[in-house]
Amino acid sequence: MERHFDQELADLKENLLRMAGFTEQSVAQALKALVQRDDALAKKVDADDATLDKLEIEIDDRCIKLLALRQPTATDLRFITMAMRLSGELERIGDQAVNIAHRAEELNREPLLKPLVDIPRMAEHAQGMIHDSLDAFVYAKPNLAREVIKRDEKVDLLNRQLHRELTSFMIEDPHTITRCLNLMSVAHNLERIADHATNIAEDIVYLYEGRDIRHQNE
Amino acid sequence: MERHFDQELADLKENLLRMAGFTEQSVAQALKALVQRDDALAKKVDADDATLDKLEIEIDDRCIKLLALRQPTATDLRFITMAMRLSGELERIGDQAVNIAHRAEELNREPLLKPLVDIPRMAEHAQGMIHDSLDAFVYAKPNLAREVIKRDEKVDLLNRQLHRELTSFMIEDPHTITRCLNLMSVAHNLERIADHATNIAEDIVYLYEGRDIRHQNE
Repeated sequence: MERHFDQELADLKENLLRMAGFTEQSVAQALKALVQRDDALAKKVDADDATLDKLEIEIDDRCIKLLALRQPTATDLRFITMAMRLSGELERIGDQAVNIAHRAEELNREPLLKPLVDIPRMAEHAQGMIHDSLDAFVYAKPNLAREVIKRDEKVDLLNRQLHRELTSFMIEDPHTITRCLNLMSVAHNLERIADHATNIAEDIVYLYEGRDIRHQNE
Repeated sequence: MERHFDQELADLKENLLRMAGFTEQSVAQALKALVQRDDALAKKVDADDATLDKLEIEIDDRCIKLLALRQPTATDLRFITMAMRLSGELERIGDQAVNIAHRAEELNREPLLKPLVDIPRMAEHAQGMIHDSLDAFVYAKPNLAREVIKRDEKVDLLNRQLHRELTSFMIEDPHTITRCLNLMSVAHNLERIADHATNIAEDIVYLYEGRDIRHQNE
């Protein structure tokens, strides 16, 4: 019985990592669709989202069954409740990727406003935060997770800078308004992806240290 | 022992409803701060958010303790896992109220763009959705929850209409740009509040019918 439960937990972890890999791919493809002005790829991100939705429901269902049948305590219980939160965060990151893909399709209907520099930079930060929070999970490194949390501020700052810059653009030349609004929206989506990565990192600290550190940096 | 556990579940429900009441109040005050141009009230919404953060952590901690000590099954297990999701949704609604309060403070620095009509209308819909999803919880009415889910579309539509209207305003008169951006942001926050109310309604259907209906309407 013990051995079987260990295997179920290992399967759960594997499913989470599969979902995480899929999420990272959606974000990467949404950004590629934006930068390379690729409508077909944008549509793929939109279509793929159903897989993430399905994975979320499957993982949560598995977690509730484990809670009911195995009645876990201590670390196993923390792992299972954390898994339910993590699946939700990953699904929400996927939704942000879909939003970016939609904005990319709208931006592709007009000429390029200017070479994209700040958005790929923001994206690199946000993607790094997702990646490292997942590494903190896989390699049981709560300190890496704590370090991810600190990086959220940088993405917020980049978002505010970009918001100001794009506002100036709009005021100078009203022809750029719809493009600037779409770019603002992408920056906002990236800022929220970084927020979700921060939530994941907080969950990882909770998993490995048993401490709930949410809302301490607000 | 059984009796004591029933009391613990009743306490948990009471805490959730207390948190829900507080959340509804924050949303109402943020909108009042916007409509009545009341900076002091906007600051109060911002300050009060710490209470919601604290309630979320307390409720989740209580849930995990109940899972560990009581090892519930069936309906009780569903109730406890739903409670953890609900506290998260309420906390996120509170964050949206804080965003609205911040936008109100920025809007108060400039003259009124035009009388606010559409935003209070959107707000009424979003607040009604929170209220009814909580009623569905209190009075065990999954059908009311299903009806709330259908109303989300209306709020999305109002948000898109307002986005288009405000974009036209900006193009016609660039002096209105910063005000229009703040109003767009408020509309977006209301749209997200309606999304969270939809999530709550889905959780309530799950609680009372045992069916996970998330992502079916996307």
